[in-house]
Amino acid sequence: MIKVGIVGATGYTGAELLRLLAVHPEAQVIVITSRSEQGKPVADLYPSLRGIIDLVFSLPDVDQLAQCDVVFFATPHGVAQSMVASILERGVKVIDLSADFRIRDVPTWESWYGQAHGAPELIPQAVYGLPELNREAIASANLIACPGCYPTSVQLGFLPLMEAGCIDISDLIANSASGVSGAGRQASIGALHAEVSDSFKAYAASGHRHLPEIVQGLNDMALSASGPAGGSADTSVNLTFVPHLLPINRGIHSTLYATLTDLSVDVQALFEARYADEPFVDVLPAGSHPQTNSVRGSNVCRIAVHRPNGGAKVVVLVVEDNLTKGASGQGIQCMNIICGLTENAGLAAPALLP
Amino acid sequence: MIKVGIVGATGYTGAELLRLLAVHPEAQVIVITSRSEQGKPVADLYPSLRGIIDLVFSLPDVDQLAQCDVVFFATPHGVAQSMVASILERGVKVIDLSADFRIRDVPTWESWYGQAHGAPELIPQAVYGLPELNREAIASANLIACPGCYPTSVQLGFLPLMEAGCIDISDLIANSASGVSGAGRQASIGALHAEVSDSFKAYAASGHRHLPEIVQGLNDMALSASGPAGGSADTSVNLTFVPHLLPINRGIHSTLYATLTDLSVDVQALFEARYADEPFVDVLPAGSHPQTNSVRGSNVCRIAVHRPNGGAKVVVLVVEDNLTKGASGQGIQCMNIICGLTENAGLAAPALLP
Amino acid sequence: MIKVGIVGATGYTGAELLRLLAVHPEAQVIVITSRSEQGKPVADLYPSLRGIIDLVFSLPDVDQLAQCDVVFFATPHGVAQSMVASILERGVKVIDLSADFRIRDVPTWESWYGQAHGAPELIPQAVYGLPELNREAIASANLIACPGCYPTSVQLGFLPLMEAGCIDISDLIANSASGVSGAGRQASIGALHAEVSDSFKAYAASGHRHLPEIVQGLNDMALSASGPAGGSADTSVNLTFVPHLLPINRGIHSTLYATLTDLSVDVQALFEARYADEPFVDVLPAGSHPQTNSVRGSNVCRIAVHRPNGGAKVVVLVVEDNLTKGASGQGIQCMNIICGLTENAGLAAPALLP
Amino acid sequence: MIKVGIVGATGYTGAELLRLLAVHPEAQVIVITSRSEQGKPVADLYPSLRGIIDLVFSLPDVDQLAQCDVVFFATPHGVAQSMVASILERGVKVIDLSADFRIRDVPTWESWYGQAHGAPELIPQAVYGLPELNREAIASANLIACPGCYPTSVQLGFLPLMEAGCIDISDLIANSASGVSGAGRQASIGALHAEVSDSFKAYAASGHRHLPEIVQGLNDMALSASGPAGGSADTSVNLTFVPHLLPINRGIHSTLYATLTDLSVDVQALFEARYADEPFVDVLPAGSHPQTNSVRGSNVCRIAVHRPNGGAKVVVLVVEDNLTKGASGQGIQCMNIICGLTENAGLAAPALLP
Repeated sequence: MIKVGIVGATGYTGAELLRLLAVHPEAQVIVITSRSEQGKPVADLYPSLRGIIDLVFSLPDVDQLAQCDVVFFATPHGVAQSMVASILERGVKVIDLSADFRIRDVPTWESWYGQAHGAPELIPQAVYGLPELNREAIASANLIACPGCYPTSVQLGFLPLMEAGCIDISDLIANSASGVSGAGRQASIGALHAEVSDSFKAYAASGHRHLPEIVQGLNDMALSASGPAGGSADTSVNLTFVPHLLPINRGIHSTLYATLTDLSVDVQALFEARYADEPFVDVLPAGSHPQTNSVRGSNVCRIAVHRPNGGAKVVVLVVEDNLTKGASGQGIQCMNIICGLTENAGLAAPALLP
Repeated sequence: MIKVGIVGATGYTGAELLRLLAVHPEAQVIVITSRSEQGKPVADLYPSLRGIIDLVFSLPDVDQLAQCDVVFFATPHGVAQSMVASILERGVKVIDLSADFRIRDVPTWESWYGQAHGAPELIPQAVYGLPELNREAIASANLIACPGCYPTSVQLGFLPLMEAGCIDISDLIANSASGVSGAGRQASIGALHAEVSDSFKAYAASGHRHLPEIVQGLNDMALSASGPAGGSADTSVNLTFVPHLLPINRGIHSTLYATLTDLSVDVQALFEARYADEPFVDVLPAGSHPQTNSVRGSNVCRIAVHRPNGGAKVVVLVVEDNLTKGASGQGIQCMNIICGLTENAGLAAPALLP
Repeated sequence: MIKVGIVGATGYTGAELLRLLAVHPEAQVIVITSRSEQGKPVADLYPSLRGIIDLVFSLPDVDQLAQCDVVFFATPHGVAQSMVASILERGVKVIDLSADFRIRDVPTWESWYGQAHGAPELIPQAVYGLPELNREAIASANLIACPGCYPTSVQLGFLPLMEAGCIDISDLIANSASGVSGAGRQASIGALHAEVSDSFKAYAASGHRHLPEIVQGLNDMALSASGPAGGSADTSVNLTFVPHLLPINRGIHSTLYATLTDLSVDVQALFEARYADEPFVDVLPAGSHPQTNSVRGSNVCRIAVHRPNGGAKVVVLVVEDNLTKGASGQGIQCMNIICGLTENAGLAAPALLP
Repeated sequence: MIKVGIVGATGYTGAELLRLLAVHPEAQVIVITSRSEQGKPVADLYPSLRGIIDLVFSLPDVDQLAQCDVVFFATPHGVAQSMVASILERGVKVIDLSADFRIRDVPTWESWYGQAHGAPELIPQAVYGLPELNREAIASANLIACPGCYPTSVQLGFLPLMEAGCIDISDLIANSASGVSGAGRQASIGALHAEVSDSFKAYAASGHRHLPEIVQGLNDMALSASGPAGGSADTSVNLTFVPHLLPINRGIHSTLYATLTDLSVDVQALFEARYADEPFVDVLPAGSHPQTNSVRGSNVCRIAVHRPNGGAKVVVLVVEDNLTKGASGQGIQCMNIICGLTENAGLAAPALLP
């Protein structure tokens, strides 16, 4: 059994790690830390885990964490930066679900997160934990920077088009909508039921922290593109990203817009071929519209591709569960890869429907 | 008191007409028809109207409807076409909330609605009931074709930009999301609570009936544009329109994307100026994000404009209540104009929040 | 026009007062106070009021409030106690929506609210603002203690049975469920969308602050009962009250259980007769089940009565909007009575459906 | 691997069986039948099962079903009656999730379900599938009548009190509320999102089909009671049962009321002792209030017991997932018992939260 530690398990991504790992056939959580809930049984905070997880929150302690094979960080940004080095030194693998190591350019990170980066020297060894892009690098990584929830959906949706080099990368649009668990489990008026339910809105239309992370990923894809536009000197992707808040608990839906530079491309075939062997990406039949509840609680990302009126505009519809494929499930997928397990170990259960 | 008749008041737009007209200071509903519910008190179908509306559903009858000053059609498409002529002949004004007279090009209508048009000879006299565009024509019209719910939000959002001629009309995107009342009050598995709630999806990504209506309106605006692109020979708007289904009862949110051809435009000032005198369009301060619950049950359309990173892309956020400004409220606004009443008579109540 | 002031208008009951008074034909809000939001336009907090209410939050000031005819308190308990005396002195009527003056027995109040009462000398002059019970006293009152949301529904549901003296008052049960706006507009984890939505629970099963208020009211009814049990020496009502939290924004549903001591009573006729002249109580036909959305945003309380299998158990189903008939609407109803207006002035609009 | 067949898998209980069996370590679904969807891949109806279940709906066929070890019926009432005999004859175990064999008294069944019973001769061998009551009988049964969703929650909540004989069985109240999936996956206006969401109501207050099933179970418990009231000649339970419709997808909450005849009973200890060894009943600490989301998608039933003010009234709060412990999960629990597997095989995953 792989021994797992979780730092900062009081939020929704921490709870999702616990839910999934509780029935993982080859991993066991042995340490859960929380500064605020020290000494409290996990099941007191999450009654859904009564009788399933018997652990008690402890203060973060490197010696204790060093007994683990893998340590997850489910903390706000800034926390992992201050602890990861000492854990890596002890030979423990780290999977960080926060934003701390996702962006390679330190000034960019510092500008969006409004603080100095606490461990810039670790950034070069951090592997971006999107298996569909980086499976081999993940397998041998010591430090995984797990992608954000929006970035996972947007990158998986654009990936086949970017790699094929068949779209105009100077004008990409990602219209995304997320369930409210993406805002975390902090008391705030804006996330109250009476404010969120039976309503809908955009937010951060002028700029969101996930934008630079997505752009970095798309630029990487553009650089390695194999199609007609590949190898071009100009790879600066221009993306307009507008997130919205859905009155649902879990789920992200991204509606992506791009203009084909090569009208002869069979986009349906392109997507099906690209993801044929991916265990967690499901390309729907032509004409489909994925619904977020089809991935509720599952690690699957479902995608459909449309060309309205057969024109140059391609519309990609992507759904994922923001807490699973968009966070904790993806982290476990990375753990499975690192530890040489079947990639869907502990991640095989279908979505909860209805 | 203006005497009002409603044909086909068993659906949500009919119920919304009744809700609003129940407290309209200068109008009174005297006839309500329904083939399926004939003889049934309205309040039996809608307990919310008990003690407020005492009418009984009757079979549609031209003599009875001829006693009205104004008759609303809240029927599925195809019904108004067969009855409007006989009502107009009796000197009664008709406000049609259905799609029957919205599209001027008959073959286009017939293609999208899959049936022959029943009264093409009436189309030329039908006035498109968007007061912000057509107030004067509405005032003297006998037949109003009330805009669809999506088209109202999309056209009001693009209008200032189109009139200013400052955007590239060959690549417009409307990413819209509607509450489930837009699907009507028919039994269907797809609209069940267990299928819709806690979920989100796009639909009709390859083409929706509201697309030709929106494009017709945008083309009209392009033709009359005053800016640099105005008067251009090529006014064929190219719009990608993707509707989505929200797990809310009422409300439409449209996120519109266009590329500025003139970067010097102050889009905030442009919108504020255009709508300064409009009683039902509220341009929010720069940096705002309108929420659908701010217009729940109200006839107001709220709009915010963004230019992410100050670039060429302009993002317009529009909210309305699909049953009010998107249907019945707009119909009553037209009635007020036709009858020379204050335009917000019966429409002054603020949104229900929360 | 009646000049109205509102103390503490930043919560949901304050917002509901503003919504209703905005279109009240004979009242106008001239002062709105808030310590936390001083200087901020009301419409900045509630975008739904943009263009409708132009006031700015001010610090509570007796001289300013003295210019009003009526002042509402929409404050947490404890606040009205400290300010009411100085306002009453200036000849202004006070309608308190908080719990400060609802309970006549000071030690009981102090025990449930955990603090010393700040103005016990005012309690005797406070009139409990349930018009269906106290219409005449309200008309001449200077200080109204508006009933709580649960107490309104429970008392209106038991009232005809209590007055008829036909039930066993030693074993009453009120199983109530409230929408989440009842918890107020404070940031708390328990009221987050992700915690409340798609879920349901009881709370305070061992005792809730509204219990003593309800019991006081039921005891009063028992004392004045006209039926067989009336005038009995023993009037100590025994009520089990269990509140529940509904994943809806507005609405209370109370399911009441009592045992008939007189099986010959026609409970349907009893309820219809008792409420025949009440403008805001609607007794549904036999066999009905009221739904909370039939009173959403309306001041109406809808009631149905059942005797399962025609036995001794009587089940009363009561719905109201907790913010309207359960708080602000009822307060305005009291204001109308005090000011000699039509009782439904400003309260005539039907519920918002769907 | 146990070979499983499912008759009538197009509804929500069928989908729930598929969800749970998809990851059951020792069972495999080999036949799924549906008259209406014959020839259609299961994953076309339920996209959440794409890549997980490859079966195609077939017409019900006894020879094919005879290849199974266990056949589940997830059909409307009346269907199992017509097919079970021929399947049992082939030596296959049958677990019926419908109401066909739950009620032992044939006239009672026929009265509530409005049709003649199709296989009364099988009723004596049907074992009521509530493991907490009937574990041994289930182990050797050929035909299991799985309890209804409401009856499971009400019976588990009253069971310890009934067995202890410490309550007045002549006046029991069950105030229950169910998520909308309990109404099935049929198109109906009453189950539309726009009718159900943001609302709440009671239904069938004068009598519901689950009442006789619950009363039968409670009477059995009374007959076998061990406490002071045990063995009494009068065991006719009198239960008032009022179901309500919750705007949630899954979950039942029952609030039960009874009067203690023995005030010395420690109800908390009583419940803890009764359920100490039950794998799927979790008695919460004193003072708790279970929330339905703590069992969403899980087979656990959570219970809390209260005595308001320490009086004679006992209030029991019970939550379960109506599709899991209230239907398909309980059916699988029975299958595990019948087949000698660990009782929680395939049922160990925690609830989905949030």
